[in-house]
Amino acid sequence: MSDATNDASTPGTYVEPGQEYTRDTNYIEDRITQDSRDGWPVEAGRYRLIAARACPWANRTVISRRLLGLEGAISLGLPGPTHDSRSWTFDLDPGGVDPVLGIERLQEAFFKRTPDYPRGITVPAIVDVPSGKVVTNNFPQITLDFATEWTAFHREGAPDLYPERLRDEIDDVAEVVFRDVNNGVYRAGFAGNQKSYERAYDRLFSRLDWLSDRLEDQRYLVGDTITEADIRLFTTLARFDAVYHGHFKCNRQKLTEMPVLWAYARDLFQTPGFGDTIDFEQIKKHYYVVHSDINPTGIVPAGPDPRVWLTPHSREDLGGRPFGDGTPPPPPVAGEEVPAILAA
Amino acid sequence: MSDATNDASTPGTYVEPGQEYTRDTNYIEDRITQDSRDGWPVEAGRYRLIAARACPWANRTVISRRLLGLEGAISLGLPGPTHDSRSWTFDLDPGGVDPVLGIERLQEAFFKRTPDYPRGITVPAIVDVPSGKVVTNNFPQITLDFATEWTAFHREGAPDLYPERLRDEIDDVAEVVFRDVNNGVYRAGFAGNQKSYERAYDRLFSRLDWLSDRLEDQRYLVGDTITEADIRLFTTLARFDAVYHGHFKCNRQKLTEMPVLWAYARDLFQTPGFGDTIDFEQIKKHYYVVHSDINPTGIVPAGPDPRVWLTPHSREDLGGRPFGDGTPPPPPVAGEEVPAILAA
Repeated sequence: MSDATNDASTPGTYVEPGQEYTRDTNYIEDRITQDSRDGWPVEAGRYRLIAARACPWANRTVISRRLLGLEGAISLGLPGPTHDSRSWTFDLDPGGVDPVLGIERLQEAFFKRTPDYPRGITVPAIVDVPSGKVVTNNFPQITLDFATEWTAFHREGAPDLYPERLRDEIDDVAEVVFRDVNNGVYRAGFAGNQKSYERAYDRLFSRLDWLSDRLEDQRYLVGDTITEADIRLFTTLARFDAVYHGHFKCNRQKLTEMPVLWAYARDLFQTPGFGDTIDFEQIKKHYYVVHSDINPTGIVPAGPDPRVWLTPHSREDLGGRPFGDGTPPPPPVAGEEVPAILAA
Repeated sequence: MSDATNDASTPGTYVEPGQEYTRDTNYIEDRITQDSRDGWPVEAGRYRLIAARACPWANRTVISRRLLGLEGAISLGLPGPTHDSRSWTFDLDPGGVDPVLGIERLQEAFFKRTPDYPRGITVPAIVDVPSGKVVTNNFPQITLDFATEWTAFHREGAPDLYPERLRDEIDDVAEVVFRDVNNGVYRAGFAGNQKSYERAYDRLFSRLDWLSDRLEDQRYLVGDTITEADIRLFTTLARFDAVYHGHFKCNRQKLTEMPVLWAYARDLFQTPGFGDTIDFEQIKKHYYVVHSDINPTGIVPAGPDPRVWLTPHSREDLGGRPFGDGTPPPPPVAGEEVPAILAA
């Protein structure tokens, strides 16, 4: 989740001097399921996914929704890249109001669920449109439920992103990737002392080396098709050179200087459903503007040149079947396109 | 010059919000010459060069002194990488005192020259040892005078770093390199608004492209030997990936991603007198700690891996004679070594 309320008393405060960074992982854990166990049945047209382009955790849900073809069943609301210390806002929408929920601030949907909701106002969040209440912001579960509970609404040719026989392996990989990579970059960037930073940096790059070895002769992280594990790694890699390398000081190398991971990341980027969800301008603006305690000037770097993402990667030579027995998704639906990267 | 006193009223203030960065280029402009026109004759053992390893402007003088073999004629004092808002300090020396000048703060030598000296306490500075007064901190002139006024004390085999017939061309190149590159990285990093930053960024990378074209088939910047022009470009390139890429947001590419300039920079780095003056730890510590308004956490990045500087560059294939009719300098004198980069 990307949190708008790290410390509500001090806007823009993400680093606690002297301290290690610890993510608050308490979420609203309701699930939307076929058996409606939490009171939220799978139902087309009922829910709205709120997912900022900037946020890597939200990005997972957007990719998953694209690959599975859930656009018609679950609508998408997109807050802008920056926010104040209280809430993500719908500042990109006409009048600054989400056209379906009719709210200006995502906070309102959390407060409808729980007045004075005390924790982070985070994306991704799924909102029940009739009541306007947040159902869940528990991001690791959202994509798993898209893959396994929303099957009735999957498009024809949708891939199996969480195959039963590979779940243990996917979960194991996802766990260390979360700890050392997805959250590891934040632990480096929000470290309040040199030692915590260096510990996070060492764990991050050791894990990237491990991933590089794993991916050297194998096209995808688990099995020979795209799975949940790839989606989770991709959203961090997509932000690596644009943000984490400089802003979070994850600078042993750029992603472009790690040949296996760079080819792997470009392979996914160039696969329909991945790169067409990435908006580098929104990504950079989010981190460099919102974290004012790391970047007080608020200046957003002009680089790096995103055209490198379109260069050949040769990962097809490793074989693999990106969508297994399925097919690639069609182009993004109208209104959900990201700005194109212009070829060099 | 690297300035310890950008804004004495607010420690650590380098960026003026909303404003473009403008370097104060008023220096103490006395010269040490053979004809003693300013009262300062060329004389072995009389002067002490104060030059922090961290500072690119000071680095020029250290390289020039090494190449010309002036170590025996002009001694070297080395302030530590960090300083407060008032002055560079001799915190690396035993007792925190420069062993020759007997002072703790470089400021003292400026005040001996001019009580309440109102401008930047900068390195490089040359101090007259008998009086303890700063003679000059006018960095662009210092290296030219090393090359042309101190000839009586040059080592056997010293190169001609400022050949008479090439001076116009060297001056022309140095001027645009100063404006767009040496000072250009600071104009990007200290920009107080997005527009000034982007202007500096565009000029910097346009100039680097121009330099890359110039150096594609030509080993050195002017003529076929190392000159003053190369020294001036080198000290900025040496700091590019370690500091300017992330800290100053000069991130269109890393130097390692600009093939001609990267090979050129490694060629010089691996030439005696260049790489053996570079201390990456001091360089990173200086920028990331001193500029607390750009990096409030004070955390110093662990990367990038400096071992890449030792990789082959193949620039010998272009010909050229690094030292012309002269020879490379011997290893650094005892006490002036920098930490070695360990091979991978």
